[in-house]
Amino acid sequence: MPRIDAERFLRDLNELRKIGAYRTGVHRPTYSPQDMESRRWLMERLAECGLEPSIDGIGNVYGRHKGPGPHLLVGSHIESQNQAGWLDGALGVMTGVALARAGLPVDVCAFADEEGHFEGGFLGSRSIIGELSEDDIDRSRSRNDGQPLRDALAAAGLAGKPRMQLEPGRHKGFFEMHIEQGTQLESKGLRVGVVTGIVAIWQWLIHFDGQQDHAGGTTMAERKDAGLSAVRLLAAIDQEFHRVCGERSTWTTGRISLDPGAPSIIPGSAEVLFQFRDVSVPILERMEATLRALVQESNRREKCPATLSQKSRATPAICDAAMMLALEAAAEAEAPGVWTRMPSGAGHDAQYIAKRMPAAMLFTPSIGGISHHWAEDTKEEDLALCCQVLGTAAEKFLAS
Amino acid sequence: MPRIDAERFLRDLNELRKIGAYRTGVHRPTYSPQDMESRRWLMERLAECGLEPSIDGIGNVYGRHKGPGPHLLVGSHIESQNQAGWLDGALGVMTGVALARAGLPVDVCAFADEEGHFEGGFLGSRSIIGELSEDDIDRSRSRNDGQPLRDALAAAGLAGKPRMQLEPGRHKGFFEMHIEQGTQLESKGLRVGVVTGIVAIWQWLIHFDGQQDHAGGTTMAERKDAGLSAVRLLAAIDQEFHRVCGERSTWTTGRISLDPGAPSIIPGSAEVLFQFRDVSVPILERMEATLRALVQESNRREKCPATLSQKSRATPAICDAAMMLALEAAAEAEAPGVWTRMPSGAGHDAQYIAKRMPAAMLFTPSIGGISHHWAEDTKEEDLALCCQVLGTAAEKFLAS
Repeated sequence: MPRIDAERFLRDLNELRKIGAYRTGVHRPTYSPQDMESRRWLMERLAECGLEPSIDGIGNVYGRHKGPGPHLLVGSHIESQNQAGWLDGALGVMTGVALARAGLPVDVCAFADEEGHFEGGFLGSRSIIGELSEDDIDRSRSRNDGQPLRDALAAAGLAGKPRMQLEPGRHKGFFEMHIEQGTQLESKGLRVGVVTGIVAIWQWLIHFDGQQDHAGGTTMAERKDAGLSAVRLLAAIDQEFHRVCGERSTWTTGRISLDPGAPSIIPGSAEVLFQFRDVSVPILERMEATLRALVQESNRREKCPATLSQKSRATPAICDAAMMLALEAAAEAEAPGVWTRMPSGAGHDAQYIAKRMPAAMLFTPSIGGISHHWAEDTKEEDLALCCQVLGTAAEKFLAS
Repeated sequence: MPRIDAERFLRDLNELRKIGAYRTGVHRPTYSPQDMESRRWLMERLAECGLEPSIDGIGNVYGRHKGPGPHLLVGSHIESQNQAGWLDGALGVMTGVALARAGLPVDVCAFADEEGHFEGGFLGSRSIIGELSEDDIDRSRSRNDGQPLRDALAAAGLAGKPRMQLEPGRHKGFFEMHIEQGTQLESKGLRVGVVTGIVAIWQWLIHFDGQQDHAGGTTMAERKDAGLSAVRLLAAIDQEFHRVCGERSTWTTGRISLDPGAPSIIPGSAEVLFQFRDVSVPILERMEATLRALVQESNRREKCPATLSQKSRATPAICDAAMMLALEAAAEAEAPGVWTRMPSGAGHDAQYIAKRMPAAMLFTPSIGGISHHWAEDTKEEDLALCCQVLGTAAEKFLAS
């Protein structure tokens, strides 16, 4: 049974936390100076534990085990949402380092832009499985400020570097540890979650085209208020989605932008970022049909035409049965009675890596369920426990 | 009958249009370098036509007639909304200059920040009538970027300058010419509007306090989505306001901000800028009562508390009967059969100046009703015609 050096693991995590520190969290948007500093720091850690470090043309940092196989791949992402938590993806990457330090035959990878600062998102995991084309890179822009991805890569010093691909047959499976980002574990007093599957996110942009006008001179009958059409569609979604969703579906409006956004101007256009998630494709398709019908109805009733464009359409991933068995056995050994099986409501790099090899995930509890916010946190004893569960499971699975 | 030099009037307007030019309009936010340049340019024009120019501590530019009275005050504002039209307030200011050039005994004033780039709005006209305190100035911040008004005044070189007050008894009345900002004139083929009264704007900020969370990890039942509570309140306003509004009431949501505004984050807070307008105080009060009831209902039903704060509460202004008579007679003389009486749906400096002296307004048509947008425009022959109507009316009123 490989024993994880929990103290060293926590020390590594806390050292990484200093890069881009923001209050008790971090601010490391993809390809920002802070993000690139964390990638260079990680390469030093990978070299330190005997792996061969490299960084590729999309920013993936990879530590390759030099000894004989069978190998496992362990990792997650190292960039953060804006002003967000210190664990999130960093936890999965540093768990890989901890397993390597414990002598397990693992390659460790930090995939770039899981957080989707750039259109498309999951750039690193999509790239390493061969599902990110040069055209995709040419088209993608920052969701924060519109900067082209190519420019961001050049500014980060990555232009022209080759993009690495997974070596077929090298890995027996991929493990990703992550915070739960919810309160299912905490509310039941549990400390470990064995993930059964990962929801897919279908992300949409809804644009409304109105007429910018003075808010006093234009009568209610004359105006074409793009913001009002947006509010009516969102209210209709709120009324209808519960009729077609699944038990664990979620749907979220993350942004509403009225242009120009001033008190005395009727908005000339409006943009809405809307997404829904589920583990079941039929349920996702049912929600899509409802969304399309509501947009069609909006276009029948409203003066401001609505245009629906899909920004992402991932496939839900089901975790590998043998790897889940290894995780469950390890959880029962290390944390008897305080673990459970659960789906992941969030998207993760594992959903792309699962297209090339068996994959599984382990969740740590999230204090108060807070995520994508600088106050995100997990008890240190839970971090250490889950890292040990993953190490034990990795050994079990390698031996199976 | 004083004849206006229409060619010179249009040349002045087009010269001013070059300062802060944006496409076919202008971008001159209050106290910006472009705005201050236009104020200095105006002072040169005022001196040119024999007036004594000055600028005061709130940015009001004043041209004082040197001869004997009775005097009129003529003017409007010179700053613009962001990326907005070339006429709007500039038209009223340059009409004052045209009347001065024609030898009429007028003082000309460009009041600062009618557009409300800073909280409170109408800084110049409120200041000159003694209704803007030093405390008001201390508290006000930019609605665009949060900059304190004091800092903006200092950056514009206005810190420490005294603020001028209207000289009691000096003026027989105040005339303001403005674009209609609607399609009432254009749609009826009319060229001149004699304004009967000015609506009051009651501006509100509605803040919703939720819990920022991950859009996948947090179930629909657990989440406190501030954006969703905002959408539901706005949908309720859309359902209820038509039951209590007046015939010419307007209500507008100019901005909806979800924080942090990212695709995969449940908004932790939301802010809505909402306003309504009417010429009747009882109708304004009815709309206020409905808004307050809907916010109370939102707080009964929703998990995200809503807080309502009033950002402005103006009083509607009724135009002076004798001045309206002079305008009507001049309109019938210069534009027989193509003028009408009409209320103003927009707020104007005249509503504050009307607290200290008789005041009246004249509207020019707006092409397509477009306003607060760079495409705003009025036919040159209509501009010239209305300027002549105002000159004729001014002489009639002075002689009455």
